[in-house]
Amino acid sequence: MNLSSGLLEAAVKEFSKLPGIGKKTALRLVLHLLKQEKTDVQLFSETIERMRNEIKFCSNCFNISDGDLCSICLHPSRKKEVICVVENIRDVIAIESTEQYHGSYHVLGGVISPLDGVGPEQLTIESLVARVQREGTTEIVFALSPTIQGDTTIYYVRKKLNKPELKFTTIARGISFGGELEYADEMTLAKSIRNRLPVDSYIQ
Amino acid sequence: MNLSSGLLEAAVKEFSKLPGIGKKTALRLVLHLLKQEKTDVQLFSETIERMRNEIKFCSNCFNISDGDLCSICLHPSRKKEVICVVENIRDVIAIESTEQYHGSYHVLGGVISPLDGVGPEQLTIESLVARVQREGTTEIVFALSPTIQGDTTIYYVRKKLNKPELKFTTIARGISFGGELEYADEMTLAKSIRNRLPVDSYIQ
Repeated sequence: MNLSSGLLEAAVKEFSKLPGIGKKTALRLVLHLLKQEKTDVQLFSETIERMRNEIKFCSNCFNISDGDLCSICLHPSRKKEVICVVENIRDVIAIESTEQYHGSYHVLGGVISPLDGVGPEQLTIESLVARVQREGTTEIVFALSPTIQGDTTIYYVRKKLNKPELKFTTIARGISFGGELEYADEMTLAKSIRNRLPVDSYIQ
Repeated sequence: MNLSSGLLEAAVKEFSKLPGIGKKTALRLVLHLLKQEKTDVQLFSETIERMRNEIKFCSNCFNISDGDLCSICLHPSRKKEVICVVENIRDVIAIESTEQYHGSYHVLGGVISPLDGVGPEQLTIESLVARVQREGTTEIVFALSPTIQGDTTIYYVRKKLNKPELKFTTIARGISFGGELEYADEMTLAKSIRNRLPVDSYIQ
């Protein structure tokens, strides 16, 4: 794309580095910013830079945080003895938005995937083990992707945390709401039949 | 969306002000930036801010420019006597990317639309009239939207520039390449039959 301004070209190039943003979309966004007040654009760029420079990771659960501990770890009414193990902070945000979970989290930073060069030592598993020993955890809820890598990670973490009093659970897999039975894959359908629930628990 | 960090929340809010970017996409973009190096994010934000603060509009054609005159107006081999009248700089970029036009441009800044409160005085029509008198223009190529507002603007500009030696043209309307006849609207099809071309000019 030949733009008549080097400044514009540089801004389009920066925007098109973002995931899912091509040259055309980048140009649209940049031309939008060009129409905004200078102070608004300054606020935009300063907010982004400040976020990158000042954001921290919670030293307990590795969720993002403005301080040393995140607001979930600091919250007085969250159950500290239940830990939900997730891959990344996006998963924390997704589960938080359901408002159905009141325990704490542990962000692994990925799943074990030898093909991608991710071994247990790249993840925050050691910190999780230390946390469980320190905090008197009663339940670990795995909310990982239903892939071989996710299952491997569950297997590994469970072995590492081997304590008879610890309960291990995983979020339920099954047919999504609004999903039609005939289009569900066999694996999901098979699991949802095997793990069938009393109707009472479904209706509540 | 309840995010555990105010800094993250502020950045998501800024991104979701951009057109076509919802909260979920904004979050994805912000989390991507969070994974990048601090220097890369700094470059991103500085480039955007610099673009907004330093970009100028060409004093001749109102295209965006790094200096007083844009690179198209300054280009020695562009035909100064042919002026393509467009609504905005996006149209300049679109026409430039075809590499089929070698004249100069004039960016109106919109089209006459009384319902939206846009009259001729909000557009750069006076400057165009002055330019035509100054530059010895031979042809005005209208490349405006095929709407009532676009047509009104063509009518108005033509009347303002009323000179017998000036040629007025408009970009061709017709069935797009790859478009199927049966799905074309009647207006377009009617115009494309009325303005039919010799096959030779089509094939070249």
